[in-house]
Amino acid sequence: MQPNALGNNVITQIGLLVNDIEKTSEAYATFFGVEKPNWFWTDTADKAQTEYRGGPTEARAKLAFFDMGSLQLELIEPDHNPSTWRESLDRNGEGFHHIAFVIKGMQEKISLLEQGGMPLLQKGEYTGGRYAYLDSFKDLKVLIELLEND
Amino acid sequence: MQPNALGNNVITQIGLLVNDIEKTSEAYATFFGVEKPNWFWTDTADKAQTEYRGGPTEARAKLAFFDMGSLQLELIEPDHNPSTWRESLDRNGEGFHHIAFVIKGMQEKISLLEQGGMPLLQKGEYTGGRYAYLDSFKDLKVLIELLEND
Repeated sequence: MQPNALGNNVITQIGLLVNDIEKTSEAYATFFGVEKPNWFWTDTADKAQTEYRGGPTEARAKLAFFDMGSLQLELIEPDHNPSTWRESLDRNGEGFHHIAFVIKGMQEKISLLEQGGMPLLQKGEYTGGRYAYLDSFKDLKVLIELLEND
Repeated sequence: MQPNALGNNVITQIGLLVNDIEKTSEAYATFFGVEKPNWFWTDTADKAQTEYRGGPTEARAKLAFFDMGSLQLELIEPDHNPSTWRESLDRNGEGFHHIAFVIKGMQEKISLLEQGGMPLLQKGEYTGGRYAYLDSFKDLKVLIELLEND
């Protein structure tokens, strides 16, 4: 792996998988003493162009975000189509899913990480940017997500 | 649960369990583009006064810390005595263990959280402070750690 291939080493987000986003959002809102954020669906496949393990998928998820200082906590309730979210939830149950980093130049970063032994697992578009999950488990013991905002 | 019982909602640390702290420290040092930190053993039981599930334990762990901006990444390689570290590593394998918050007034915070349905799982002392893990999984889907520095 090229040292600091990302060009950034600030963890910007922690992502958690949940079965009931309403219930867990409520629990975190109380725990943090903040208002419960509204959840929303990720875009449909035509917009999100989601790919999982090399092929297109219809997968979507409900997302809710808590902005706690410099770190964002993301709650993710996936639908039943194939995705890293659904696979992890089915395999490991609710809880931790990923840590995320903001980057520039998605294709270049994905290539660098793949060359370094972290294969692309899932990617997609969202309004104003795109994301990619890399299978970094072997080296880093967690999944990482790259976020690029235009 | 009393809203914002902690009096703080800034996640200060993410803790990961590993089998080989040397190897995973090396991987993170390269990934982040920083020097590999030295790991060290937690204190022996006479100093640490570690309690796990209500009783004393001889458990210790090797720890290494990466300070990445406002968030600290902690790597934990536990020994084979009973602890939340060893239990989680045996049950779930390497990877995510906890998120941590800095608090003031450990006993009061533990009482508030226990009343709110988050039982104490493990606690101990370290030079300059003390920690406690609370079983917050039912509500928050992750384990939380409280850190109090004198």
